[in-house]
Amino acid sequence: MWSTVLTVAELELIAAIRRRVGVRSERIVRPPGDDAAVVRARPYAVTSIDCVIDGVHVSLATHAPADVGHTALARGLSDLAAMGADAGEAYVAFVVPEGFTEAEALELVEGMEALAQRTGTTIAGGDVAGGPALALAVTVTGWADDAGALVGRDGARPGDLVGVTGTLGASAAGLALLRGARPAGLAPADTGALRARHLRPEPKLAAGRALARAGVTAMIDVSDGVATDAAHLAEASGVEVRVELERLPLARGVADVARAAGREPAELAATGGDDYELLFTAPPAAREAVEAAAAEAGTTVAWLGEVRAGSGVVLLDAAGAVVELAGFEHLRES
Amino acid sequence: MWSTVLTVAELELIAAIRRRVGVRSERIVRPPGDDAAVVRARPYAVTSIDCVIDGVHVSLATHAPADVGHTALARGLSDLAAMGADAGEAYVAFVVPEGFTEAEALELVEGMEALAQRTGTTIAGGDVAGGPALALAVTVTGWADDAGALVGRDGARPGDLVGVTGTLGASAAGLALLRGARPAGLAPADTGALRARHLRPEPKLAAGRALARAGVTAMIDVSDGVATDAAHLAEASGVEVRVELERLPLARGVADVARAAGREPAELAATGGDDYELLFTAPPAAREAVEAAAAEAGTTVAWLGEVRAGSGVVLLDAAGAVVELAGFEHLRES
Repeated sequence: MWSTVLTVAELELIAAIRRRVGVRSERIVRPPGDDAAVVRARPYAVTSIDCVIDGVHVSLATHAPADVGHTALARGLSDLAAMGADAGEAYVAFVVPEGFTEAEALELVEGMEALAQRTGTTIAGGDVAGGPALALAVTVTGWADDAGALVGRDGARPGDLVGVTGTLGASAAGLALLRGARPAGLAPADTGALRARHLRPEPKLAAGRALARAGVTAMIDVSDGVATDAAHLAEASGVEVRVELERLPLARGVADVARAAGREPAELAATGGDDYELLFTAPPAAREAVEAAAAEAGTTVAWLGEVRAGSGVVLLDAAGAVVELAGFEHLRES
Repeated sequence: MWSTVLTVAELELIAAIRRRVGVRSERIVRPPGDDAAVVRARPYAVTSIDCVIDGVHVSLATHAPADVGHTALARGLSDLAAMGADAGEAYVAFVVPEGFTEAEALELVEGMEALAQRTGTTIAGGDVAGGPALALAVTVTGWADDAGALVGRDGARPGDLVGVTGTLGASAAGLALLRGARPAGLAPADTGALRARHLRPEPKLAAGRALARAGVTAMIDVSDGVATDAAHLAEASGVEVRVELERLPLARGVADVARAAGREPAELAATGGDDYELLFTAPPAAREAVEAAAAEAGTTVAWLGEVRAGSGVVLLDAAGAVVELAGFEHLRES
């Protein structure tokens, strides 16, 4: 751990990283520095791995190193949120390209560590190596005392309602702004907020736990866009998921950015990824409990449609007609 | 999980991978396919992350895709071996460059899966993305029922003996052979065995558990070479580790390869990495128990030297004089 490649510069980087990473759980029996970390377990481990590569998932043209570090951890924590698990530990493989300075590497680690601290996560191990591009693979382990309290993608049943937390389209709109879009009439505060949603996505850990307790039947985080993530949920559950596009909760300013780019706002919200909101299904009887749980976790719920027998995702316009989004024809089949 | 980047080709690859990966533990509550895997825990989780990058740790010029997959998992399992933990689950981030075919990717996964099967490991989750070079980050989680049964790097005490399992130098010699070295007099069987030690390093899980039970005080896997790994152990334990170079157990043929390259065989064995044997310390009273444990696990023990008060590694020649290896002067300080 933290020790694969042994150039002196990498050893120094590893030592510097270790000094910046805090152990914030009594569960950590052996912290970083041994062959492996040892953690006192709770009954169920909930684990996900995600990678973030410069030029693929993030870009050093738009992201500061700290944004990259934040995003790499946020993606994994968002998976834990979608299961309703508590955050635990993170393990980080960090590939550093030539020309990426130690100062930049430490900024990146500080961005990750700040999110770890705020979410009660301990960065408990890692590996540093030189490579052709900046890349991070982050494994996050969360914990639960009861497997039945965790929510998969596979529990949606015909008759369930389809809901989503917070607002959508913000990350895609933020990316457009970072790439130079300047829509007329967009307030500076909205511009900043949209950019921040792209650069510093917030995993919805509290909302995920609250929704799980409130009785949601299936849940997934919105990483690929609501349309695609609804298709994943529909496939895992063996149902049809119907989403009314006009009910998508657009973040402030998304409509301005979309129109300036010649796109329908609802389409941007349906297909834009990386919002890291939670898409879920719940029986109608749980509707009020779900809304109360979301409010307690500091967020909102928008009800998008319903679950039917069948397969795939059906997107509907305001008149109830089926909408085919370019490039998303395969969702009906998935 | 298995779902970050959504080109159809990647989705097909993910589906193909899933079909090849077996769930081989009743501990797996939710297998790959959800936001995160859910695993029934034992009391202590033992976790390590390692990355393997084409051109850095492995090379497609010498490694078949299945060798890369094997090696990426073996490195992590070797960390679990060095703790004395049981193998559990693996989580794999798989970065696929342009031109690497789906057939090659599946070969790679099959190489990994074969080792997983043989060691009782379940590949329980992953992520696939396109990127600039073939790279794998593998997180392995092992389990233990008692934290006291696990062995760190930090338990070596003055008076302990220093031992190592199996034979050394084989991986470095195998790499030289793969790169075209043709030493006179090397038997074809030895050539094949040395190459295999480089391409398919075997994590010493059974030996690690057996040595932990037999009372070793500190343990590390030999990934960077005995000289460097002994320095890690010395630093973590706050002791001096003395290694007599002539006692290093050279694998068959290593001496031929070293001499053909104009190097001292013992130096190659001391500095060659990736042997994935286990370097450990044990009190003299545990000597016979350690030898018996190793024999029961199908391997041997060579006693290399002793632990003294002090710091760093001291390498000694047959006459008891201190040897300075070029490039390893820093070991005294580390």
